[in-house]
Amino acid sequence: MLKEALYHRPKNNFAYAYDEQTLHIRLRTKKNDIGSVQLIYGDPYEWKDGNWLLKKELMIKTGSDVYFDYYLASVRPGFRRMRYGFELSDGNETFVFTEKGVFESAPTNDIAPYFCFPFLHPVDVFKAPDWVKNTVWYQIFPERFANGTSSNDPEGTLAWGSSEPTPANFFGGDFLGVLQHLDHLSSLGISGIYFTPIFKATSNHKYDTIDYLEIDPQFGTKEDFRQLVDACHEKGIKVMLDAVFNHSGFYFVPFQDVLVHQENSNYKNWFHIREYPVVTDPLPNYDTFAFEKTMPKLNTANPEVKNYLLNVARYWIDEFNIDGWRLDVANEVDHQFWRELRRTVKSIKADAYILGEIWHDALPWLQGDQFDAIMNYPFSSLALDYIARSNINALEFTKKISGILHSYPENVNEVMFNLLGSHDTERVLTVTGGNTKKVMQLFVLLLSFPGTPCIYYGDEIGMTGGRDPGCRKCMEWNPDAQNHELFAGLQKLIRLKKEVPSFSAKSPISFLTSEDTPDLLTYVKAAGDEKLLFAFNTSSSELTLNPALFGSAEPLINIWTNETLKSDEARVEPDDFLIIKWKAN
Amino acid sequence: MLKEALYHRPKNNFAYAYDEQTLHIRLRTKKNDIGSVQLIYGDPYEWKDGNWLLKKELMIKTGSDVYFDYYLASVRPGFRRMRYGFELSDGNETFVFTEKGVFESAPTNDIAPYFCFPFLHPVDVFKAPDWVKNTVWYQIFPERFANGTSSNDPEGTLAWGSSEPTPANFFGGDFLGVLQHLDHLSSLGISGIYFTPIFKATSNHKYDTIDYLEIDPQFGTKEDFRQLVDACHEKGIKVMLDAVFNHSGFYFVPFQDVLVHQENSNYKNWFHIREYPVVTDPLPNYDTFAFEKTMPKLNTANPEVKNYLLNVARYWIDEFNIDGWRLDVANEVDHQFWRELRRTVKSIKADAYILGEIWHDALPWLQGDQFDAIMNYPFSSLALDYIARSNINALEFTKKISGILHSYPENVNEVMFNLLGSHDTERVLTVTGGNTKKVMQLFVLLLSFPGTPCIYYGDEIGMTGGRDPGCRKCMEWNPDAQNHELFAGLQKLIRLKKEVPSFSAKSPISFLTSEDTPDLLTYVKAAGDEKLLFAFNTSSSELTLNPALFGSAEPLINIWTNETLKSDEARVEPDDFLIIKWKAN
Repeated sequence: MLKEALYHRPKNNFAYAYDEQTLHIRLRTKKNDIGSVQLIYGDPYEWKDGNWLLKKELMIKTGSDVYFDYYLASVRPGFRRMRYGFELSDGNETFVFTEKGVFESAPTNDIAPYFCFPFLHPVDVFKAPDWVKNTVWYQIFPERFANGTSSNDPEGTLAWGSSEPTPANFFGGDFLGVLQHLDHLSSLGISGIYFTPIFKATSNHKYDTIDYLEIDPQFGTKEDFRQLVDACHEKGIKVMLDAVFNHSGFYFVPFQDVLVHQENSNYKNWFHIREYPVVTDPLPNYDTFAFEKTMPKLNTANPEVKNYLLNVARYWIDEFNIDGWRLDVANEVDHQFWRELRRTVKSIKADAYILGEIWHDALPWLQGDQFDAIMNYPFSSLALDYIARSNINALEFTKKISGILHSYPENVNEVMFNLLGSHDTERVLTVTGGNTKKVMQLFVLLLSFPGTPCIYYGDEIGMTGGRDPGCRKCMEWNPDAQNHELFAGLQKLIRLKKEVPSFSAKSPISFLTSEDTPDLLTYVKAAGDEKLLFAFNTSSSELTLNPALFGSAEPLINIWTNETLKSDEARVEPDDFLIIKWKAN
Repeated sequence: MLKEALYHRPKNNFAYAYDEQTLHIRLRTKKNDIGSVQLIYGDPYEWKDGNWLLKKELMIKTGSDVYFDYYLASVRPGFRRMRYGFELSDGNETFVFTEKGVFESAPTNDIAPYFCFPFLHPVDVFKAPDWVKNTVWYQIFPERFANGTSSNDPEGTLAWGSSEPTPANFFGGDFLGVLQHLDHLSSLGISGIYFTPIFKATSNHKYDTIDYLEIDPQFGTKEDFRQLVDACHEKGIKVMLDAVFNHSGFYFVPFQDVLVHQENSNYKNWFHIREYPVVTDPLPNYDTFAFEKTMPKLNTANPEVKNYLLNVARYWIDEFNIDGWRLDVANEVDHQFWRELRRTVKSIKADAYILGEIWHDALPWLQGDQFDAIMNYPFSSLALDYIARSNINALEFTKKISGILHSYPENVNEVMFNLLGSHDTERVLTVTGGNTKKVMQLFVLLLSFPGTPCIYYGDEIGMTGGRDPGCRKCMEWNPDAQNHELFAGLQKLIRLKKEVPSFSAKSPISFLTSEDTPDLLTYVKAAGDEKLLFAFNTSSSELTLNPALFGSAEPLINIWTNETLKSDEARVEPDDFLIIKWKAN
């Protein structure tokens, strides 16, 4: 057994409080290298006759990535304290892996070598709002969803959908437009809207905030927004806003003050200014988002800035009852600020959702003290690489996505914000080259994956578009130009997710993808004794599922067609999927 | 090259801000497996013609433990942002290791695969007080250091040193006693005192607090304490107190109130009570420290308790100007509480030192938001295993201690609280079986190791004692019973540490211990071009140092004897040490 491949360290994805009673302990080993792993554990203070009282529990293999296997044990320590190690065997060899290295057998005269989870404090447990686990999100880019009234159209507004989107043009989307189309969302089964920024700003995307406490007049008034939030809530739809706290817009009053008064400005410490006079050309001499001179980076360590932004976070919850904040460029803001944001937000609305925009490995932000979730772009990228781009096969997808799932605690995975695209990426139908069957496969994958799914506006009716600005076209409201089959498919999927316990179950998925059929992605979810198998065929020929996947259980039900079938009748067409339900014996 | 052995993950000991400009990036590889490693890095937003602009920098091997080598690069990214990966070569094979796995060559059309350190925020940098790096601590157990006046002796106080210490007896140690003996400390070179608890409590050790805002009368009054702190400060000695915030004593008023009023007590949520009525026997039905019914665990998540304890932390700094808090059983208190404690303490005294008692791997507490350091028991245990107990040789010591050093950031190592023993362990002279030469070796190791050293009272004059209560004997003030040679040796060491820049340097130590002489521990420290080599012989015969260790530099100076020597004349006697200084060419 390869000792160099073993990895464990407490207080992260390898050892964490799953809930207020339960610890999850994981071990990483070299792939296919270990016979079995026992967790050796006990209370640090339970001793008898000079010997530490240890227990053993077999750990379960929960998955594999490219190089490693992962094992899990779930333990409820009586006094919320635990010391532990791992006993590994492969038939020939047995050893114990601890914080202080490898031992031939488990030390019992001293607990110092063992890993330690000193105390399970409820206040330290990662806890995201429960409602998020059952939410299906819909992302709206307000300028492009629907123009409810021309009365608030900005100058130069173009007729809806009359031309291609550019970085600078306007089509007049507004709150009234959203309000008028809430039934479209309800009918699809949506239970949460994520709005990209709505505050006063110059651009069409509004990521260059001028005033965080004002609605951009092109969208309507505060009263309009209040009505919209209330209408959403009446329909059981949560509302999440976009908080652009990493940087302001160029015309944010404090930044303008700095440009005018330079070193004498009262706001000079609101930004990161490297020298005076402040200049924007040829390169800004102040920190910005990327090198974008119109987006000066805010100094979130300055107490004045902190108070201002925390007040913003408070204001829109207090006054308008919004349900969550999506934090733009969240990785580039300091951790202290996010900790204070969490305290502020949760103190006024305990079940508000805090979602960070982080594209890379984000564990440092997901320890219970900062965010509830991040936007799961690594999921999007792998899902599209697999189903849409055919860059990787089902087996490679399984390995890579398992690596990601095991890089976070399970309670984090349960509320991950999963998406197939956004205002920052190509649209899913475009990535598939216009193949709506692949889009349906992607929707099935998205909806069944651990976490909370988000549909980018228009993807449900088959809109296309390349990267920004292409993906920001006006929503297609002409029924003749909408793909009704896609809409109906997604609608049915969302209904199934709500109705079938094992579909919606927060239980992690178990991959069954086999080396023998590397183009057949298979995984199972379970709720009690109800099992649900998902299969995806990305090859060019029909594939038959191995009957052994179902044990000897029958009847099997294809929940998509409502047909029953025998275990040797489960076949998947190319570019198609299968969802089969049965009761475990 | 073994891919399974590679490990890197940002925002911990593998990637951290060393200071406000500098990032340290480390990579773990299989031991002796890699030819060279280049850090591939760049600003995430610097692109040209569709290609990411990356730079390369050779990483330096900083050490090895039992299974792994560790490489380091130190980078100052111009805009404080960095994406990065690692290019590994061994002559036959070259590949690039990233967050998203292994590539044949460095991707330049997409930065998504790379590891990310999104922004270096000064407010998130781990920063411990500078003075700690130059402090030599002395731990005083107040009941046993010196009895300055019998006027405050508790009932039944025994004559000083008239009998062995027991868990329950008293000898009358007090503040006046400490004040009277400050010259002993100054003469030794001490610049900080760590007092075990001094607040009102029942026991002789005072870890069972009755009142956190009162001095225990057996030690004197608040006025006496104030005088003592002032006197220490006049002599350049910092004062650190022991904060027992994990649990109170049995006679803590709120706990007594619970025992009396049970479910009706206003204090019932100050503790973790599992059921009513609260009982202490046969087992307490409330959480305790270990299973010690007289030490009920405090509910540090309760805002009332939090306010009370944070006020305690504030009070002794505000009113008495103490310089640090040592936090008892720090690992069993919640992280949120410690974050608030840090904010409270640093807001009133920015350079106060916050030291946690944690015996195991403690990285989760050392991320800049909680502690400045922990008590480095893993160091003690390895140092004693090697020099005192001869359980491991110099080579094993080198590997294991290197593993520990690489498990923390370098700026954390620089302020680690290193000790050879305390009121909770056997005394160092006892562990060595009475061998004062070994004790001197241990003092040299302690004083030269990265971090801040602490001497347990009496160890400097050769006191002996087993585990508690043996290690808590009355301080020996009879000059005839003191080991003056040991005292003089330690005194000289502390002087050298202050005078010789490379001795005191915070630069990490580089181990030179060789497979060929596994009983000869060698390491080098450097300050500018001044080098200092430390060598320890734990074999039973004289050992000669390899002249190559010194390059061709001469003269070499033995700073202990002040003799010059040639590079082939460096020899170490059994149980002895050598400290040799030279200028690098």
